[in-house]
Amino acid sequence: MEGVDHLAHERNKTEFDVDAMKIVWAGSRHAFEVSDRMARLVASDPAFQKDNRTRLGRKELFKNTLRKAAHAWKRILDLRLTEEEAGRLRTFVDEPAFTDLHWGMFVPAIKGQGTDEQQQKWLPLAYKMQIIGCYAQTELGHGSNVQGLETTATFDPETDEFVIHSPTLTSCKWWPGGLGKISTHAVVYARLLTNGQEHGVHGFIVQLRSMDDHMPLPGITIGDIGMKFGNGAYNTMDNGVLKFDHVRIPRNQMLMRVLQVTREGKCVQSNVPRQLIYGTMVFVRQSIVADASVALSRAVCIATRYSAVRRQFGSQDGGVETQVIDYKTQQNRLFPLLASAYAFRFVGEWLKWLYTDVTQRLQANDFSTLPEAHACTAGLKSLTTTATADAIEECRKLCGGHGYLCASGLPELFAVYVPACTYEGDNIVLLLQVARFLVKTVSQLGSGKKPVGTTAYLGRVQDLLQCRCDVQTAEDWLKPSVVLEAFEARSARMCVARAQNLSKFENPEDGFAELSADLVEAAVAHCQLIVVSKFIDKLQQDIPGNGVKQQLQNLCYIYALNLLHNYLGDFLSTGCITPKQASLANDQLRSLYSQIRPNAIALVDAFNYTDHYLGSVLGRYDGNVYPKLYEEAWKDPLNDSVVPDGYHEYVRPMLKQQLRNARL
Amino acid sequence: MEGVDHLAHERNKTEFDVDAMKIVWAGSRHAFEVSDRMARLVASDPAFQKDNRTRLGRKELFKNTLRKAAHAWKRILDLRLTEEEAGRLRTFVDEPAFTDLHWGMFVPAIKGQGTDEQQQKWLPLAYKMQIIGCYAQTELGHGSNVQGLETTATFDPETDEFVIHSPTLTSCKWWPGGLGKISTHAVVYARLLTNGQEHGVHGFIVQLRSMDDHMPLPGITIGDIGMKFGNGAYNTMDNGVLKFDHVRIPRNQMLMRVLQVTREGKCVQSNVPRQLIYGTMVFVRQSIVADASVALSRAVCIATRYSAVRRQFGSQDGGVETQVIDYKTQQNRLFPLLASAYAFRFVGEWLKWLYTDVTQRLQANDFSTLPEAHACTAGLKSLTTTATADAIEECRKLCGGHGYLCASGLPELFAVYVPACTYEGDNIVLLLQVARFLVKTVSQLGSGKKPVGTTAYLGRVQDLLQCRCDVQTAEDWLKPSVVLEAFEARSARMCVARAQNLSKFENPEDGFAELSADLVEAAVAHCQLIVVSKFIDKLQQDIPGNGVKQQLQNLCYIYALNLLHNYLGDFLSTGCITPKQASLANDQLRSLYSQIRPNAIALVDAFNYTDHYLGSVLGRYDGNVYPKLYEEAWKDPLNDSVVPDGYHEYVRPMLKQQLRNARL
Ligand SMILES: Cc1cc2nc3c(=O)[nH]c(=O)nc-3n(C[C@H](O)[C@H](O)[C@H](O)COP(=O)(O)OP(=O)(O)OC[C@H]3O[C@@H](n4cnc5c(N)ncnc54)[C@H](O)[C@@H]3O)c2cc1C
Ligand SMILES: Cc1cc2nc3c(=O)[nH]c(=O)nc-3n(C[C@H](O)[C@H](O)[C@H](O)COP(=O)(O)OP(=O)(O)OC[C@H]3O[C@@H](n4cnc5c(N)ncnc54)[C@H](O)[C@@H]3O)c2cc1C
Ligand SMILES: [Ca+2]
Repeated sequence: MEGVDHLAHERNKTEFDVDAMKIVWAGSRHAFEVSDRMARLVASDPAFQKDNRTRLGRKELFKNTLRKAAHAWKRILDLRLTEEEAGRLRTFVDEPAFTDLHWGMFVPAIKGQGTDEQQQKWLPLAYKMQIIGCYAQTELGHGSNVQGLETTATFDPETDEFVIHSPTLTSCKWWPGGLGKISTHAVVYARLLTNGQEHGVHGFIVQLRSMDDHMPLPGITIGDIGMKFGNGAYNTMDNGVLKFDHVRIPRNQMLMRVLQVTREGKCVQSNVPRQLIYGTMVFVRQSIVADASVALSRAVCIATRYSAVRRQFGSQDGGVETQVIDYKTQQNRLFPLLASAYAFRFVGEWLKWLYTDVTQRLQANDFSTLPEAHACTAGLKSLTTTATADAIEECRKLCGGHGYLCASGLPELFAVYVPACTYEGDNIVLLLQVARFLVKTVSQLGSGKKPVGTTAYLGRVQDLLQCRCDVQTAEDWLKPSVVLEAFEARSARMCVARAQNLSKFENPEDGFAELSADLVEAAVAHCQLIVVSKFIDKLQQDIPGNGVKQQLQNLCYIYALNLLHNYLGDFLSTGCITPKQASLANDQLRSLYSQIRPNAIALVDAFNYTDHYLGSVLGRYDGNVYPKLYEEAWKDPLNDSVVPDGYHEYVRPMLKQQLRNARL
Repeated sequence: MEGVDHLAHERNKTEFDVDAMKIVWAGSRHAFEVSDRMARLVASDPAFQKDNRTRLGRKELFKNTLRKAAHAWKRILDLRLTEEEAGRLRTFVDEPAFTDLHWGMFVPAIKGQGTDEQQQKWLPLAYKMQIIGCYAQTELGHGSNVQGLETTATFDPETDEFVIHSPTLTSCKWWPGGLGKISTHAVVYARLLTNGQEHGVHGFIVQLRSMDDHMPLPGITIGDIGMKFGNGAYNTMDNGVLKFDHVRIPRNQMLMRVLQVTREGKCVQSNVPRQLIYGTMVFVRQSIVADASVALSRAVCIATRYSAVRRQFGSQDGGVETQVIDYKTQQNRLFPLLASAYAFRFVGEWLKWLYTDVTQRLQANDFSTLPEAHACTAGLKSLTTTATADAIEECRKLCGGHGYLCASGLPELFAVYVPACTYEGDNIVLLLQVARFLVKTVSQLGSGKKPVGTTAYLGRVQDLLQCRCDVQTAEDWLKPSVVLEAFEARSARMCVARAQNLSKFENPEDGFAELSADLVEAAVAHCQLIVVSKFIDKLQQDIPGNGVKQQLQNLCYIYALNLLHNYLGDFLSTGCITPKQASLANDQLRSLYSQIRPNAIALVDAFNYTDHYLGSVLGRYDGNVYPKLYEEAWKDPLNDSVVPDGYHEYVRPMLKQQLRNARL
């Protein structure tokens, strides 16, 4: 049966050009080709095999990751891959590793916060991996509150050095990836002290380990912080703990692009604007949003294919049973997630544009859009990662019992994904920032300050407070303007109402604290509007390919109308729509499910994931699930012997009523 | 610092009698004492240590579980524990094991489906563990649809035997716990064939392994199905695969309480009512609801204590920071889960009563309440397990980064818990059953058939369609009758509206299929009403202990008003309450959070969990989190050596630019 496509009957139903959709998903033909080439490169190389991951103990698992990282680097060098290609290759290797932090945090920190001189010294070493770096910010006692970090960097004018020190247990660095076992260097964030004065938290390049024998340098204690969620998952990463006992580094290892410490220990602000760091944040978060669409689409691809393979109930007289994807409850859980994958993809694409825009403005000393861009990326990071984490688990449940097997790929996908809700800003803390920005924006509306970018709609707040939704039939919900207005009105009304409630408090900070849960809801409404509106914008573009736009339109409406259903309380309590209109939206949603149904498999094929990358027996391209599940089972170490280890010591004495004498 | 209670300042704030609350939580003084004694017995016995679990490979992990199971059995025998005590002891050992299925499924199946003769033969063997049994129903191809099972049991009149056979790959048994490596026997569900005729699916006692050397008997292939979600979690269990090649068993090993096969191969219905099986289902599901409250309360206990320990932001001038439990967003996420733990506890208690009631009625040949009891337990199983799975993950997120460490206990608690959403009935399939029952109940209202039990309120449907909520102040939401009416009206109106939509279809089955997602929502509304109403009922009882009832009242309103907020769309679209009333409910909720806040730690102390059972550094009773996290980290195998395995082969060549020559 090898080679048979068990999903061919599904693929034959497709009503659009899948190859064209692949380009849309990838963003461009070039992006598609690079991804496709790198994915195949990884998939065809036995050195990157990953299906044994959950069966390895921690040490083996980790060693295996070191091997893959070295192999990947070797391939990158041998094939002279571009930066873009190298990045894609690492993505498809699909295993958290110290290299992620080296390329993703250490190098960007030096680029963003180092002086030209520092960049010239350190970047070439990092680019060649002659040093390996990590990003050591979080401590045992402080993560979200970066200003509360306790590590100190005290300038010693006598030796022209900084003394890096961990004064308390809670000041130990805790979590940095790559720190525990591998990094030779770190950017360490510490409280700058000079001449007995505090100058806030800054980054310092600190060598951690000897380049000769890899042993921690004097005064430095480092270790791994132990097992994390899941089996393989993030346990391939050496998240570490780090304690400094008065470790000395030269003065020129403080990252001084913004603030410089002179030979005398004076602090001098450079002429580089502090706001630059926001640029970096926008960059990091846009890539997290892009990653969300990838993780979500992987889960959806697995659940969709398996839902077409799995049959349960509904057979008349022993005939063939119903594919579970044909149950409306299954569709109602699955299709909005499929739509979300596309929605997040497009909003991620737009964020990439936003980052370019912000960068250009920064270079022109235009900071006017920064607060809005910052709030927007914070909010979208929170929204997309929370939704994706929940969605992966829902996809697992959509696969019934078999979803619980590691062979389904979903448990590990979940375990490896969920920290995205916490790192780079706890999702609730981020929403509170968005809420703060919205409240401020609303409060300034009267003053004539025009809201920009994603908050521009708030400039039409008077209209939005009064407008009425004129949906009268289910089809009326298929108008972009109708959907957009409903989402704008809901968000605007929530923001205004919350701001009014706040104004009842004498002390605005007390009010903000007391009403923070409500405020977070307004922030969510605002962020959902952004996603919906960017999806609608996308549809205004010219999109080539037979039937492609039609599918995307259906997905866009599924995304929006499903949100409308799930957050109906918001829409009704603000009077944006009526219960009757809500019920029409629901009718329309069901009809959209039927339209998407024959295209579901093709819509996940368009992600162009290899079976290697998916890592799921349930999500196999060919749908040949059962024989492969069966084969896979036998690989478990427990099946090495028919009679298990421990039978003679523990089970037999039980069965033979001889426990009393057994040594347990 | 050992012995210092870092949460003493919290415990000093308590406004109620914690010891009295412990009794309320346990259900009775007796239940409390048994639990307390068994928990301490396990916690103080080094043989039951479990904190190394996530660091073990599969084989070690499994062997370790065999050892604990044997040790537990030995303690049970040595101490002559009662059945109740033994059950509690196994709970506190807190590790899925083959014994769970032996006691929880194999023995009950024989009791429920075996004839007296069969019980006399098999139960004594099982009670002494001279045989170990499992429950082999699910197959690779069929789980939810039990009637679709493919394994055959063909009667051979020549030898007076059944021939058990797996005719296809998908007919392999797949999932049964205890099957893979340990069980000597199984109750196997198979399609009965005699005289060329099919007679549905029935249970058969089949010996799987030799009592001499534990090898599978001829014609039987068995193995473990491989790694499952999480690290320790369910990987201590040998969920198995089983294939039969014409295996013969004596005729008297078919479980024949309800249907008998004679020597000639004729099927004869016994006079025992088929409905008996529903009694067993009610029993199993009530215990799943009870387990939900346990799992949820463990997670809530960890998140609550850590939220009181963790401080982040809010310090003025370097002073002490705010405990994160004082942030309203944290409260808004956490306290409804605390309330849910109590809510599920009480509805579980009530289900225990329901089971007794059903059993008595069955004995008196009164089947009138069975369908309602069956729907009610199906719905509550679905509601409580879904909510608990989500809540455990939310509790993990409430702990920020540290929640992602296995040392927090939460990842493993999640991974081990989630299959409860799938086994004993997929939660969506169960809700569809509830929906079907509700539609039927509504359709019979006109005919004068009086709805019973938890559907009795539908008998007042005319009132409920018309009633108006008369809340005018936030305090009005603290009346039981007001809350109850709102939930009854919402559920009744949703059921009636859905039933009316159904009646528009010519073929009711088509309508049911098309509208099934909406119908599931009505089922959820109905089930939430049951939980709210049983909590309110509980408060009508006499509850001793200073301040205890006050706390429970607060929790009850938090549970109900939070649901009202989260499902606002339902309440508003059915016109049960107005937006203004919803906003008052929200105000009341915030005020309730403030009232619960000083009692939060005591309310989780009332669960009376030992640190052993909690298995969480973050949830430690004494709040001494940071030093213990630090200690725990060093136990990871990766910390066995300072320079990790693989450094010389893979990392050093990278750093030294010598990869080209390296063997990878
Ligand atoms: C897998 C992983 C990898 C990581 N990698 C790195 C790394 O490479 N380098 C590094 O430096 N760090 C790293 N981290 C750390 C990470 O950045 C932090 O965990 C993250 O910033 C969250 O901070 P926290 O853990 O202190 O959460 P906390 O702030 O302690 O959050 C606990 C709870 O308090 C709430 N809370 C906190 N403040 C407020 C407030 N003001 N208002 C309301 N609620 C509040 C939160 O919402 C949350 O519910 C990593 C973490 C993980 C899990
Ligand atoms: C940890 C664990 C332990 C287990 N232990 C045992 C054991 O000891 N013995 C044993 O016999 N079995 C056991 N099982 C198997 C378990 O009982 C089944 O997995 C469960 O019944 C779900 O069935 P399924 O896997 O076939 O799901 P499926 O029915 O395949 O579900 C897949 C999807 O289809 C949907 N679906 C199915 N039917 C319908 C429908 N009619 N309408 C709408 N949607 C539908 C579901 O909602 C789900 O989303 C265990 C499973 C697990 C995970
Ligand atoms: Ca492991």
